[in-house]
Amino acid sequence: MRQNLLAVAAATLFLTACNATSDALLPKTSHQPEKPKNVIMIVSDGMGPAYTTAYRNFRDDPATPQVESVIFDRIFVGNASTYPAQESGFVTDSAAAATALAAGVKSYNGAIGVDVNKQPVESVLQKAKALGMKTGIAVTSQIVHATPAAYMAHNESRKNYNALADSFFDHKINGEFTANVMLGGGTQYFEREDRDVTAQFIDAGYAYVDTYNKLATIPAGENVLGLFAPVGLPWVLDDKRKNRLAYLTEHAIKHLENDNGFFLLVEASQVDWAGHANDIASAMAEMHDLNLTLEYLYQYVQENPDTLVVLTADHSTGGLTIGARGQYAWEPEWLKHLTASPSSIAAALPQAAEPVAFATEKLGFTLNEEEAKQIIALAKLKSTRAIETGIKSLLDIRTNTGWTTGGHTGVDVEVFAFGQGHESFYGQYDNTDIAKKIFSLLPDASQQTMTEEKATVKPTSAEGCDFEKDWRCQ
Amino acid sequence: MRQNLLAVAAATLFLTACNATSDALLPKTSHQPEKPKNVIMIVSDGMGPAYTTAYRNFRDDPATPQVESVIFDRIFVGNASTYPAQESGFVTDSAAAATALAAGVKSYNGAIGVDVNKQPVESVLQKAKALGMKTGIAVTSQIVHATPAAYMAHNESRKNYNALADSFFDHKINGEFTANVMLGGGTQYFEREDRDVTAQFIDAGYAYVDTYNKLATIPAGENVLGLFAPVGLPWVLDDKRKNRLAYLTEHAIKHLENDNGFFLLVEASQVDWAGHANDIASAMAEMHDLNLTLEYLYQYVQENPDTLVVLTADHSTGGLTIGARGQYAWEPEWLKHLTASPSSIAAALPQAAEPVAFATEKLGFTLNEEEAKQIIALAKLKSTRAIETGIKSLLDIRTNTGWTTGGHTGVDVEVFAFGQGHESFYGQYDNTDIAKKIFSLLPDASQQTMTEEKATVKPTSAEGCDFEKDWRCQ
Repeated sequence: MRQNLLAVAAATLFLTACNATSDALLPKTSHQPEKPKNVIMIVSDGMGPAYTTAYRNFRDDPATPQVESVIFDRIFVGNASTYPAQESGFVTDSAAAATALAAGVKSYNGAIGVDVNKQPVESVLQKAKALGMKTGIAVTSQIVHATPAAYMAHNESRKNYNALADSFFDHKINGEFTANVMLGGGTQYFEREDRDVTAQFIDAGYAYVDTYNKLATIPAGENVLGLFAPVGLPWVLDDKRKNRLAYLTEHAIKHLENDNGFFLLVEASQVDWAGHANDIASAMAEMHDLNLTLEYLYQYVQENPDTLVVLTADHSTGGLTIGARGQYAWEPEWLKHLTASPSSIAAALPQAAEPVAFATEKLGFTLNEEEAKQIIALAKLKSTRAIETGIKSLLDIRTNTGWTTGGHTGVDVEVFAFGQGHESFYGQYDNTDIAKKIFSLLPDASQQTMTEEKATVKPTSAEGCDFEKDWRCQ
Repeated sequence: MRQNLLAVAAATLFLTACNATSDALLPKTSHQPEKPKNVIMIVSDGMGPAYTTAYRNFRDDPATPQVESVIFDRIFVGNASTYPAQESGFVTDSAAAATALAAGVKSYNGAIGVDVNKQPVESVLQKAKALGMKTGIAVTSQIVHATPAAYMAHNESRKNYNALADSFFDHKINGEFTANVMLGGGTQYFEREDRDVTAQFIDAGYAYVDTYNKLATIPAGENVLGLFAPVGLPWVLDDKRKNRLAYLTEHAIKHLENDNGFFLLVEASQVDWAGHANDIASAMAEMHDLNLTLEYLYQYVQENPDTLVVLTADHSTGGLTIGARGQYAWEPEWLKHLTASPSSIAAALPQAAEPVAFATEKLGFTLNEEEAKQIIALAKLKSTRAIETGIKSLLDIRTNTGWTTGGHTGVDVEVFAFGQGHESFYGQYDNTDIAKKIFSLLPDASQQTMTEEKATVKPTSAEGCDFEKDWRCQ
């Protein structure tokens, strides 16, 4: 079944693409390709090529001889290089990559919406707002984290979370706030001793919610600030809502839909965090939340064919490999039944009356003798971090997963697209080209220019986050 | 410059594609896309996505702010999954992958042109021969290694090199030998105590050569057996001819060109061997030989637009990552001036009067104090393998390269194509689909069927190669 489905899907995508692109060479007539009304840009942070292959394997039904296709297979269109500005070498961080994806400009690692001279560069989200579209962000990190920040703001350092939160309120585009809808984590950056940005948004007419359920109570079309955690959201393995990104995306769209169209930035932020943590169980679970989001959006585009969806990664994280240590094997079936993240299992393990039974229940498979001994030894450790490392190592051996780093790697990333205008994204190009393609697909400007204040915020101390130890800050 | 070039190239490729593919939906008319006259299939063994990105970085001119594009960027079209038949899990070996690429059939790891029931499956090369085209192979491994063998023959085990060499002579298609041209290594499998297959080919009218220079003396259009080494060719870093694959390819084509068209299988075999060895210097050098081959073929297709070229990998090898150990850096400039492979440097180091001066000259950069100490210590070791590991480790640290395995990994591989019919290769699909697409692009069969003898050769002992220790056998 799989190959036929893939072939049909590829042919459909390709022919759709051809109809539009071939027209583009013809003299300008009414048959010119229409620009999309709505643009949804998804960044799956850290999702290098190994993550999408791994996810297909993770979802495989072992009862059938073939490996079933997943939605990524249906919507693949291209490859993008990710290197930052020359001064930062060949391996990008999320800030430089997000600036490239958002504004089409190479910058240095750490840059939020500024070029190598620390001058602000306009993002596609800001441009969309300047053109009268509604705008939003829906992410699983804090909403001031590098990727959403580069679409929303300008700062010489990604570390300035408080300043970025301030700028979400202070910087205006044609007199309006940059985003109509902001969903994710980050209360600690918005509700501070020195300033309560949340209160300011409420006073400015934004609905504010701090739980997923309350989000559902807001009437469609409102401006919304939704902050569901102090920093990032919980790992999806630990979250009560297993479709949290799909849920936030659906609600963001509900509030953004309008006659002038919208631009929405969605980020599967924690694929990257799982990569930094070398946590294959969370990596697959976060990929599944992204998969649910894509399946929702694929249906949405069937019903709203004037919408473009583009997905890419900013870089690959962790040096993930499918197989390691000389063995020609990868066994993701052991990742299918976890009921908690390795991080939260590690935190609870020392308190468990029966550590082996506890770990068995949480990991979802029967431990062998060697693994049981390891769990008993881990339960006696004082360092939660060491316990977590031990649990992740156990899973790496079970699955035969490889990692080379707690940081990023420089491999090109895949690009996926569907909906109106997706044909622009076929082939091999640079991450800056993705922004340029989206700029070209936004409505024609009627001489509107962004009147945003061009203040470059000076760096302050790293706010509430230990950058050396916690990738959530990085 | 780079982005403009890429954009133009992508647009050109895409529009060329569209013209042909859109037509494919129309009623059958004279405007139907023409099938290529000649098909050149290139397998870059082991070339996962990290290898192509790494090669672009390796070729970067540090005097310019941008990273220059390479030919891979101009010809990228798609992505292919590589998993073998279910019984072999998610990580393929080169035999199962070559069987998939050659015949469009999933099989078990180790299978050469046979399905999971060990029954022969027809390859695109064999089909081309059955259709009256000339056929050839040009590789840098022994010509009976897994990839060329799966296009040429059928055997239940890749290890049966002698039996495979025999089958190259014994198996006939419509009374003809399977290939008109066979270029690569492997004299030890062809000239044996028990049988001299080379002599048999000479008696059957094949020109035989054992040096690159002699190859150039054979008049165009001859049938040729060229075996230039006992097993595989030397590492390109150690070979006098730095464009050996491009050279073999050019000469293969010279002998294959004819009115009925040809099918040529080219393999950059030793990208994989460099990956198994975790040797980043050889990996980049072998990629450069492939690059030269592609540049030659790109020019060839400009002059012979009825030719299709398809390039992919069978899998990724070594778990190569661009960056490792938490550092956001990869520094390939240290790989640009080696004058010998790490393997041959290691073999010669203990005999060097001045080990540090010797290593400096061969590696092509000035060693720092720590590295000089390492070289002095390595020079005293008895094990050449240990010395080689030390030299490769030095290069890994210099460049910040990561590896996770001496084997293969399961990540999807990129697909590249240009020339007539390349538009069939856009998108995401399975490696078996590549064979299916090529079958569909071969001339329509005039009721010709392959009359090849369907003998399944029983496994014999591993012939002349230690499979546990030497990836050249694997």
